[in-house]
Amino acid sequence: MSEKSYFRKNIDKMSGYVPGKQIAGKNIIKINTNENPYPPSPNVAKALKLFDIEQLRQYPNPRCCELCNIIGDLHNISENCVIAGNGSDDILTMALRSFVGEGEIASCVTPTYSLYSILADIQGATCAEIELNSDFSLPDNILAQIANSKLFLLPRPNAPTGTSFEMNKIKNICEKFKGIVLIDEAYADFANDNCMSLVKEFDNVIVTRTLSKSYSLAGSRFGYAVANENLINGMLKVKDSYNVNTLTQIIAKEALLDQNYFKNNVLKIKETKAYFLSELDKLNFSFLPSLTNFVFVKPPDENGEKMFNFLLENNILTRFFSGNRTNKFVRVSIGTMNDMKNTINILKKY
Amino acid sequence: MSEKSYFRKNIDKMSGYVPGKQIAGKNIIKINTNENPYPPSPNVAKALKLFDIEQLRQYPNPRCCELCNIIGDLHNISENCVIAGNGSDDILTMALRSFVGEGEIASCVTPTYSLYSILADIQGATCAEIELNSDFSLPDNILAQIANSKLFLLPRPNAPTGTSFEMNKIKNICEKFKGIVLIDEAYADFANDNCMSLVKEFDNVIVTRTLSKSYSLAGSRFGYAVANENLINGMLKVKDSYNVNTLTQIIAKEALLDQNYFKNNVLKIKETKAYFLSELDKLNFSFLPSLTNFVFVKPPDENGEKMFNFLLENNILTRFFSGNRTNKFVRVSIGTMNDMKNTINILKKY
Repeated sequence: MSEKSYFRKNIDKMSGYVPGKQIAGKNIIKINTNENPYPPSPNVAKALKLFDIEQLRQYPNPRCCELCNIIGDLHNISENCVIAGNGSDDILTMALRSFVGEGEIASCVTPTYSLYSILADIQGATCAEIELNSDFSLPDNILAQIANSKLFLLPRPNAPTGTSFEMNKIKNICEKFKGIVLIDEAYADFANDNCMSLVKEFDNVIVTRTLSKSYSLAGSRFGYAVANENLINGMLKVKDSYNVNTLTQIIAKEALLDQNYFKNNVLKIKETKAYFLSELDKLNFSFLPSLTNFVFVKPPDENGEKMFNFLLENNILTRFFSGNRTNKFVRVSIGTMNDMKNTINILKKY
Repeated sequence: MSEKSYFRKNIDKMSGYVPGKQIAGKNIIKINTNENPYPPSPNVAKALKLFDIEQLRQYPNPRCCELCNIIGDLHNISENCVIAGNGSDDILTMALRSFVGEGEIASCVTPTYSLYSILADIQGATCAEIELNSDFSLPDNILAQIANSKLFLLPRPNAPTGTSFEMNKIKNICEKFKGIVLIDEAYADFANDNCMSLVKEFDNVIVTRTLSKSYSLAGSRFGYAVANENLINGMLKVKDSYNVNTLTQIIAKEALLDQNYFKNNVLKIKETKAYFLSELDKLNFSFLPSLTNFVFVKPPDENGEKMFNFLLENNILTRFFSGNRTNKFVRVSIGTMNDMKNTINILKKY
């Protein structure tokens, strides 16, 4: 750069996060950002109908008290162990800003959610990316590899692979790692187990959740973290006072209180996924074992980019990740049964 | 601290920002957080009625394209010179993270909005607080005092004083200061002029606005910044991808397009303020010249805390700021004419 820059060097050097495309169109099957194909709870619509916009002239509740209460009940933990975010990405940002200073080290696995290393870049920190085994499991020497880092960010299940990590290995990390372990459970509602209980067992564990996937509320931006009160109190200092707006607080409340509705949607998505996987199998496409609402699919020619482009030409939007391991795959979100039948029909011509 | 802490030292040392109380109650006159006493545009209610919650299952537009377009038109500037925030506090956070590294210096005046120095604390940066003159104007040697800082944060009009700063002095700072000048125009809609044109004149100027005050949308969280494209592009790397949720994008659009409605509310608030000030005058309370929707009021005994508590005992919630100059005052937001008449009636007994 020859021109003078006002920005910090780390900001000038970095590229920003590139979110999955948000395109509209009746004829497009949008299975690229792991959105839920079903609308949120009908109670959300009812609450919006009753909402008086006069309320918007006042600031929202800064601590999201009512929501933290509901979330505390849900996980059988004190409301003081809960912090609310403008999406769980907001929580990830708070964690980086709380625990990782400029020049310090955060760590994550690779492949994983690419935002982690970008948030480290914004801090002027380094992100150590620990290569997963060939089956995308955690390497045995993970503890040694993350030892110098202040914060270890791990999604469980992982994205974009859709696979999970052994609970024993996770516990071992929580016990022996000297920094904070943040377990990003964005997809845990689709899995068979979760790490919520580790929050009570270890003083260095933060578990995050989002309403974007299982609760069909990506547009509302609500996520939260659960951790011991000490960690929550520190992160509250970093949280923007009014990070969650009034309507989102109401919408999230209605969605969280309607547990049956969201669980039923999760069930439908799992059934659709089972259909999709069995059909992929017939077509000789392979895939990783998925514990999420998406599948990491490998075409017979192991050319992820070609498969992605082929689907795109046929109005099916999925997501491709370059990189020497992920480029063999395409990440396919599970849409409606119709979406997936159409996708299979197109793939028959691949 | 004897116990081990996982937090960065700067986070452990700092206290968080304390927002004004959000209390409910029919009998309380809430004039403590500069909220607008009138509801947002009726078009907001119409848009909410038409809203299909199905939309919430998808992520919002990450760049707030439609809104940036509208805002560009409003200020006669390219949409590429606009960035959207989850409230203008979100923009302030982006600025600190973009321009001020750990150990570096930000600067602001004092007294002013206390969030600025807290955001510097979160960065692990220092905030140089430049004492204003006795009449709360900018000191002549301000340039020398902020010379070492990367970012100068100045609200115009200022809070909690409600006063403005001379345009000539602002221009001089923009021209000669080597860092970024962020002019926080949260209250500019209530003032007689603004600094929006400086964005085109200088490459180091960012002007921020919010819909929380003049547009009656504190509960929706929408703010924005205008600056040259270079600065906007850098700040976009720091922005959370989906920082503004779907409903807020719709609400902000309706509010921004209904210019007459909000301008009429601003007019009503100015009229109410004129009444309030003339009555204060009769009661021998003094006040600073206000170019905002609040007034910094000094009781005859110059005991701000006493006046604040007296009002509170009478169910009128205002805001008191300790500090050796601000403690002579109480900040009073302008509510409805009824709110202010009741406040005057109570103050008659002070």
